Amino acid sequence: MIVVKVGGGTSLDIDAAVSDIVSLRAAGTELLLVHGGAQTTNQVAEALGHPPQFVTSETGHVSRRTDRRTLEIFEMVYCGQLNKMWVEKLQRAGVNAVGLSGLDGRIFEGTRKDTLRIKVEGRRMVLRDDWTGTVERVNTDLLRLLTGAGYFPVLTPPGASTAGEAINVDGDRAAAMVAGAFQADALVILTDMPGLLKQFPDESTLIREIPRGQADHFMQYAEGRMKKKVMGAVEAIEGGVRKVIFADGRVERPISRALGGEGTHIQ
Amino acid sequence: MIVVKVGGGTSLDIDAAVSDIVSLRAAGTELLLVHGGAQTTNQVAEALGHPPQFVTSETGHVSRRTDRRTLEIFEMVYCGQLNKMWVEKLQRAGVNAVGLSGLDGRIFEGTRKDTLRIKVEGRRMVLRDDWTGTVERVNTDLLRLLTGAGYFPVLTPPGASTAGEAINVDGDRAAAMVAGAFQADALVILTDMPGLLKQFPDESTLIREIPRGQADHFMQYAEGRMKKKVMGAVEAIEGGVRKVIFADGRVERPISRALGGEGTHIQ
Repeated sequence: MIVVKVGGGTSLDIDAAVSDIVSLRAAGTELLLVHGGAQTTNQVAEALGHPPQFVTSETGHVSRRTDRRTLEIFEMVYCGQLNKMWVEKLQRAGVNAVGLSGLDGRIFEGTRKDTLRIKVEGRRMVLRDDWTGTVERVNTDLLRLLTGAGYFPVLTPPGASTAGEAINVDGDRAAAMVAGAFQADALVILTDMPGLLKQFPDESTLIREIPRGQADHFMQYAEGRMKKKVMGAVEAIEGGVRKVIFADGRVERPISRALGGEGTHIQ
Repeated sequence: MIVVKVGGGTSLDIDAAVSDIVSLRAAGTELLLVHGGAQTTNQVAEALGHPPQFVTSETGHVSRRTDRRTLEIFEMVYCGQLNKMWVEKLQRAGVNAVGLSGLDGRIFEGTRKDTLRIKVEGRRMVLRDDWTGTVERVNTDLLRLLTGAGYFPVLTPPGASTAGEAINVDGDRAAAMVAGAFQADALVILTDMPGLLKQFPDESTLIREIPRGQADHFMQYAEGRMKKKVMGAVEAIEGGVRKVIFADGRVERPISRALGGEGTHIQ
């Protein structure tokens, strides 16, 4: 099993990923797809007059402020616009895709952080009305039910809290949990970079390999959103995934190339 | 099997429908849910600067003009905002809901009308770049796979063309096709009216019963969007559904009340 995460960057080549999925499936490779949509969500939120807000937690992590209206816009973009775009492209290419959020059938289930402790200009604050959380369990039964009948699940945040609430969960870490739950041969994370860079954003400083066990150490090179991606990689490796690959999602045959050696390989 | 269609009117009481679904399922009633979202789509389309356009076909039917951008907004609202709202409310109430569009697994499959012949001020025109169609087949296998494993499918347009394209399909007629495919005991259509009215919008002129075979005749009373609802009812009855009920979606226990005799019963 190969789990593929395609980021939400608008420069990614979705059609190239779709063609590659078709070829890999035809060759007998078992695949699951998780996609994001952060960049498009920001654009739609602006257009709807509810621009994105980002907050810094006490521990220094930057995350999206997800009030109820943001959650709704998030769902419109991730589950509506983008998930159905993926499903349509796959259906047109002959793959019987089924698009699902992590809320459906509680595919991504976890705990809601209903209060968020943040720092604003050095002062501590507690934010309520926040709808974020972390994936702790994956409903592999539902995914196996669908794949066993020939369907191709296309997964996306949000997830479900244990109480059944929709929660904004990080797509990379959700994909890592899926890969862990299936003890996947590889988790391929496609972004708008050739992989993990030693000196962001200098693409010539691509890190080719990170031996498992040293991934934590490499966190020092990770910038911004890449930090969460590396955290996901570490979780996936610890969860039993054989290999995590960060690779370029802007090229032809992006998944095959990643599996063939391109990008940053953590194993 | 009871198929419930909940319209997209914003005055409908979604929480009442959810509670009723929970009670009916607990009592052993098999249910499937199809929801709409036309009214919210119009609002979001306005907010995003792409206001809805309606066209009149050569045969006099009024339908939404669905260019590619409209299709995208339609998917945002139906599959994102509203479908996930339903799934979340059901999950919070303990129902393991799985939200799916008719595009997913080609649950609603049909033919795309890629050119639309319309009349504008008496003149005939052909519209291209239109993404509408009619449901001809329902993927009952996928629905049975999910219900057999204890999941509750929550269905919504769009559908899939035979080529796998997303197509805007009428939700009432899609629900009628689902009811027909399952040879349902009843198709309950909840709207913001107490049922079918002899003199729209005078609610005191509610038609209580329409004998099967005379439904066509009653089309003369149907106004605007209600016409499509009656067309769906006729199709459902012809397709083997025992009974079609138009009932009020603004009240407590709307489905139970409809099954208990309220609204307009066509049988």
